[in-house]
Amino acid sequence: MAEKDWIRRYFAPLAKAPGAAGLTDDTAELSKGYGPLIATVDAMVEGVHFFSDDPIETVARKLVRVNVSDILGSGARPGEALLTLGWPQAGRDPGQIRTFSDSLGTELDRWGILLAGGDTVITPGGLFLSLTLTGECLGPAPVRRGGGRPGDEVWVTGEIGAARRGYLWKTEGRDEARWLSALQAPDLPPLEAGNLIASHASAAMDVSDGLLGDLASLAAASGLAAQIELERVPFAGRATSLVEMLDLASWGDDYQLLFAASPQSSGFIENSGFKVTRVGRLTEGAGLSATVCGKPVNLPETLAFEHGRVGQPPVRS
Amino acid sequence: MAEKDWIRRYFAPLAKAPGAAGLTDDTAELSKGYGPLIATVDAMVEGVHFFSDDPIETVARKLVRVNVSDILGSGARPGEALLTLGWPQAGRDPGQIRTFSDSLGTELDRWGILLAGGDTVITPGGLFLSLTLTGECLGPAPVRRGGGRPGDEVWVTGEIGAARRGYLWKTEGRDEARWLSALQAPDLPPLEAGNLIASHASAAMDVSDGLLGDLASLAAASGLAAQIELERVPFAGRATSLVEMLDLASWGDDYQLLFAASPQSSGFIENSGFKVTRVGRLTEGAGLSATVCGKPVNLPETLAFEHGRVGQPPVRS
Repeated sequence: MAEKDWIRRYFAPLAKAPGAAGLTDDTAELSKGYGPLIATVDAMVEGVHFFSDDPIETVARKLVRVNVSDILGSGARPGEALLTLGWPQAGRDPGQIRTFSDSLGTELDRWGILLAGGDTVITPGGLFLSLTLTGECLGPAPVRRGGGRPGDEVWVTGEIGAARRGYLWKTEGRDEARWLSALQAPDLPPLEAGNLIASHASAAMDVSDGLLGDLASLAAASGLAAQIELERVPFAGRATSLVEMLDLASWGDDYQLLFAASPQSSGFIENSGFKVTRVGRLTEGAGLSATVCGKPVNLPETLAFEHGRVGQPPVRS
Repeated sequence: MAEKDWIRRYFAPLAKAPGAAGLTDDTAELSKGYGPLIATVDAMVEGVHFFSDDPIETVARKLVRVNVSDILGSGARPGEALLTLGWPQAGRDPGQIRTFSDSLGTELDRWGILLAGGDTVITPGGLFLSLTLTGECLGPAPVRRGGGRPGDEVWVTGEIGAARRGYLWKTEGRDEARWLSALQAPDLPPLEAGNLIASHASAAMDVSDGLLGDLASLAAASGLAAQIELERVPFAGRATSLVEMLDLASWGDDYQLLFAASPQSSGFIENSGFKVTRVGRLTEGAGLSATVCGKPVNLPETLAFEHGRVGQPPVRS
């Protein structure tokens, strides 16, 4: 089937944006909304960001979620999407495209995202995908990494390390099968997290490269130091040793939200109605320090996760 | 070098959009402009949309231009861009990234496009790229394919068939080397073409899948028939036979603009200051018919170009 037929059959029905024009034109009119308009783009490559044998449903789900987390982390509501789909010339059943588009449609609906446009191409290599997602800020401007103030408390949504546990199960048979779903498509905080960030966060980002490395980035962007109390971190499952804590907190692929807020906001944050945990604070100075029950901990020099090839040890930078 | 270092070193200097935040955050704030905001996304894959041995400079240039033609064809001015770059894990000198980003920056500047964001990933397959480009409509709404009216004249900018000639030279040694540059990065009409479309076109699109197939699409979207006078088509070089005319007019990759306009606009269009040629008209009815010097011509059943793999005959749908 030709690319145009795929678009007409599988993606045009998803193109619910008012300016999508049924995907029959080359451009879509974007909704401007009321608040500032933001956009993000995240790509996923077979063998790097997902395994070749991951269900195509979860690939679609993950593609949407890794972009949604960026929008929520900026204090915004997801808006409209443009999809780039690079489908392998060989080796993947074209029947999967319907499954992919069905799953994509369900996931877009879940977040209130309207498909506005896209491009579908055939590739001699593996499956690759890229999604551009707009968002409407719920405050007067997007919340950035660099807005933290000394004395701010540091919070994280949901749980940290589920994707790492899924990876250990998938690649080494360690840990439990139930974590696999978190590796294949992360659990995200609800849409309301965007409101919480817009209303209370001084600085925010999603946790994609590991909690420790991302917190170090947020602190550096804010010109401050960060302290983290590892025993407070809401690890997926139980972290029974310092080694395990550091492993789960530096691997990445969590797509939870990390943010800083004034201590005066703590009451609002604790009553947000979804899981948010205070894990540390920002102070004058520079760098990241960690404690367990008040005792300083030596952190590994390299914290940030850099996507290597899945199935191989990740490249760390 | 890690992906983050590439972004900091090569792409952050290009991120001139006011809301790009130096590419240090996960989202960019888009400029809303005054007119309606539109967006397009076009992807390019090594071995499909460009040859592996094409200079990396022209790959960057083509990536921008195939998106710019969509924006101009909607009667708009190019605005801001988000880049997805999938760089091969092996087999391509990483030193090419600087050359790519330099060329990309020059080409973005040429069209007044501001880089707002992006994602850079490593891929086990070949090079792939995707660019999301916004545009600001110069009229009250984007010009669509479906707005043509009976009696409208059909116009095309620039020349048709240069990329085809470049392809014949590249793959078969036929034709002349000078056409290769059109295959590697198409010549586009100037920015002013967006104004002309906004001011005078009832329907418009870019010519990416072949002049004949694209005109058939425009007519069908408008619920009309189209007539084309092949001897009027501004072919690149001279088309000396009907076979050659049909070949050049159905191959694609031209990225010129095809539009319909009332005969009352012909004076304005002829005085636009760049090359625009009247090649036919829209009438009541359905389908595409062609003549050469008034004599009807049998058109091949399949007109539209569908990107196959470069170096192999294109797949036609």
